[in-house]
Amino acid sequence: MKHSEQMKLALAEAYRGIKKRHGGPFGAVIVRKGKVLSKAHNTVLKDNDPTQHAEVRAISAAARKLGTYDLSECVLYSTTEPCPMCFSAIHWARIDCVVFGTSINDVAKLGFNELAISVRKMKKMGKSPLAVKSDVLLKECRALLAYWNKLPDKQLY
Amino acid sequence: MKHSEQMKLALAEAYRGIKKRHGGPFGAVIVRKGKVLSKAHNTVLKDNDPTQHAEVRAISAAARKLGTYDLSECVLYSTTEPCPMCFSAIHWARIDCVVFGTSINDVAKLGFNELAISVRKMKKMGKSPLAVKSDVLLKECRALLAYWNKLPDKQLY
Repeated sequence: MKHSEQMKLALAEAYRGIKKRHGGPFGAVIVRKGKVLSKAHNTVLKDNDPTQHAEVRAISAAARKLGTYDLSECVLYSTTEPCPMCFSAIHWARIDCVVFGTSINDVAKLGFNELAISVRKMKKMGKSPLAVKSDVLLKECRALLAYWNKLPDKQLY
Repeated sequence: MKHSEQMKLALAEAYRGIKKRHGGPFGAVIVRKGKVLSKAHNTVLKDNDPTQHAEVRAISAAARKLGTYDLSECVLYSTTEPCPMCFSAIHWARIDCVVFGTSINDVAKLGFNELAISVRKMKKMGKSPLAVKSDVLLKECRALLAYWNKLPDKQLY
């Protein structure tokens, strides 16, 4: 399966979360050897829990499903560049590669309380072996943020 | 209550986790206006979930208890310096201050797959308002790591 196909699943998951008003406009999918292990969206508002970003939830679900904290050979797709919390969770999980669309700067502009440290900077400083691919379905991921940003009842956190 | 009293609670929580073989030798406590909101230890091995560090679990529990992702006016005590995942979770939770004992370097020496980026470096790079206090009950926190390190069945992850 191509990166764009998996990213479409992450986008659909993000829209699902927006429609349910569960949290921010973010979705993530974890794939291992072509098989989808988990899909998740941000549930910070629904759960009253600041740790429940899409990527963290996708990692928890995939790891518990496999019965191991070790997600080697997995790729994580995220509609937006993972924040430093999610980057580090991806590193701890030993995921091989992270693929994303929009950047941390894009969501910082929307008003999220973002730590402006990029995935590539985290990777370099932390000497993480994680592979990184950006700008996948960038146009569609930007449209997702624009859709959320126009909601009259959107909620920042 | 003094910092050392709260840190003793975090140490007790870490020893509890070790005895149950739930994960690494780490404990955390969150306090608001002198009242303990949550106590947690690392459960990465028990839960098969790489995101379940003591600090993340303490934040989830405290936020869900209060019914908000916003833990302003809270102090988080951790037996060891929070890793970048936990630092960022603390930032997202808007916690006022983090207090810890041993450093990331101390646990990296034990063999944990650590991203060697200190809390102070993360704070500076991310322009986080979080206050930081280190070396609290350092001797006792070092003894905790030494106790774990001598266990014949200790498990790294």
